[in-house]
Amino acid sequence: MSERPTGLKATKGIELLTFGTPNGVKASIILEELKEAYGKEYTYQEINIMQNIQKEEWFTKLGPNGRIPVIVDHDQGGFAVQEGLAILTYLTRHYDPDHKFSFTDPLDVSRAEQWIAWQHGGLGPIQGQANHFNRFAKERIQYGMQRYTGETERLVGILDNHLKDKEYLVGDKYSIADIASFGWVNILRFSGVDLDRFPNLLKWWERISARPAVQKGLAIPQKGSFGNDTYLQRLKDDEEFAQQEKELKEQIDAAKEKYGYKYSSP
Amino acid sequence: MSERPTGLKATKGIELLTFGTPNGVKASIILEELKEAYGKEYTYQEINIMQNIQKEEWFTKLGPNGRIPVIVDHDQGGFAVQEGLAILTYLTRHYDPDHKFSFTDPLDVSRAEQWIAWQHGGLGPIQGQANHFNRFAKERIQYGMQRYTGETERLVGILDNHLKDKEYLVGDKYSIADIASFGWVNILRFSGVDLDRFPNLLKWWERISARPAVQKGLAIPQKGSFGNDTYLQRLKDDEEFAQQEKELKEQIDAAKEKYGYKYSSP
Repeated sequence: MSERPTGLKATKGIELLTFGTPNGVKASIILEELKEAYGKEYTYQEINIMQNIQKEEWFTKLGPNGRIPVIVDHDQGGFAVQEGLAILTYLTRHYDPDHKFSFTDPLDVSRAEQWIAWQHGGLGPIQGQANHFNRFAKERIQYGMQRYTGETERLVGILDNHLKDKEYLVGDKYSIADIASFGWVNILRFSGVDLDRFPNLLKWWERISARPAVQKGLAIPQKGSFGNDTYLQRLKDDEEFAQQEKELKEQIDAAKEKYGYKYSSP
Repeated sequence: MSERPTGLKATKGIELLTFGTPNGVKASIILEELKEAYGKEYTYQEINIMQNIQKEEWFTKLGPNGRIPVIVDHDQGGFAVQEGLAILTYLTRHYDPDHKFSFTDPLDVSRAEQWIAWQHGGLGPIQGQANHFNRFAKERIQYGMQRYTGETERLVGILDNHLKDKEYLVGDKYSIADIASFGWVNILRFSGVDLDRFPNLLKWWERISARPAVQKGLAIPQKGSFGNDTYLQRLKDDEEFAQQEKELKEQIDAAKEKYGYKYSSP
């Protein structure tokens, strides 16, 4: 158990303030990739969001929105970057000189930016609401369950369709465009969406999961228990959990039925 | 009344496919600014989202997410850009050579990107949900009303705080960072948030509203009726509307009360 952070601890390089969420792992995955590709080192601190450390003054001076992840570049006078999209682009603009995870062609730059923005403004916020209504809200509100689970399905249907003849989202290479969406697709089963219904996306998820830097990034600050692999394993191993999940699935289906939900994407 | 669009109509320059929403006006405002600053012309077509034109195949080939706005750059082989964030950055990278609305310093580039991403992933999606639960959902769901109105207030509190000693969000100049959030702040009263409680933001909104290109952009394809100015005027002129709005306000307050909402930003 680490001590409760009260401020920055590094004096050089990148310092990452994060927690093991789908947004948090965007930052840790790109940092692990840059470490493997270029030997760039970084430090990190766990910001336990259940303890609201991200709302403390020392943190909001760096990331005024009070959300993780935030990075601080000690080699740029302590410049702080909040928002996953801006972290991915900042790190590659400054520390990916060979463009291994980013692009130089202006249209490819835009293509990547469009998919990252699509995740940042769509898949992330919406799947986050699905998790809230399906899992975390103290009331079962059917309207919210079907609204956000359904919209998450529409969104991942678009990714699946885009990937039907491609290995990665932009060009022929793995890039920050893939990293942006990976963390969310990685907990799709937990969010109440059946990944098997999206075969191109499933293969893409497996392809990216196989990268060592991705697995390392998923373990920063520690590996979460919501990932698709962990989730399926637990369904097999834990009968009580499997029963709970079956009931949740039935509740989501009942909510969809009640409101006449129809899958409509793409 | 224009004919229902069935495809692109221009052959050169930028063609904008849009509707008069807070996301739509990001694109029309920057295009009006570029027109005024550089004489860059553009064409547009109204995509009536109530008729689901944005879900038709000719549209989703350009913008696979099926949402407005989308721009097509006929001078770049018909390259299409979806997502408001990516439209703002694309247009300024290509057509703002003097950086009148964008930045050259890499840290300012990141600062602008952070605020645009903050809007794109936070204020936009969340205020959109507030509008849904307060205005458009067929049921009155108190939980949703207070959740999203409350989070919208937290978010605009962050903008207000950031603007306490600044005229614009980044540096000393009006930029795409301001344009990104303007469309949403412009309908804040409609969304159930009292703009008067955020005095720095109110002044910022007035400052940006005063720009001729902003007013022109707000009228593409036609001026909406949800803007703060129109809203206040209608409260004065239309007694029935004022009564309805008073009741809505009471319902939102009751929902907040029920769930123990407390304003907590910044």
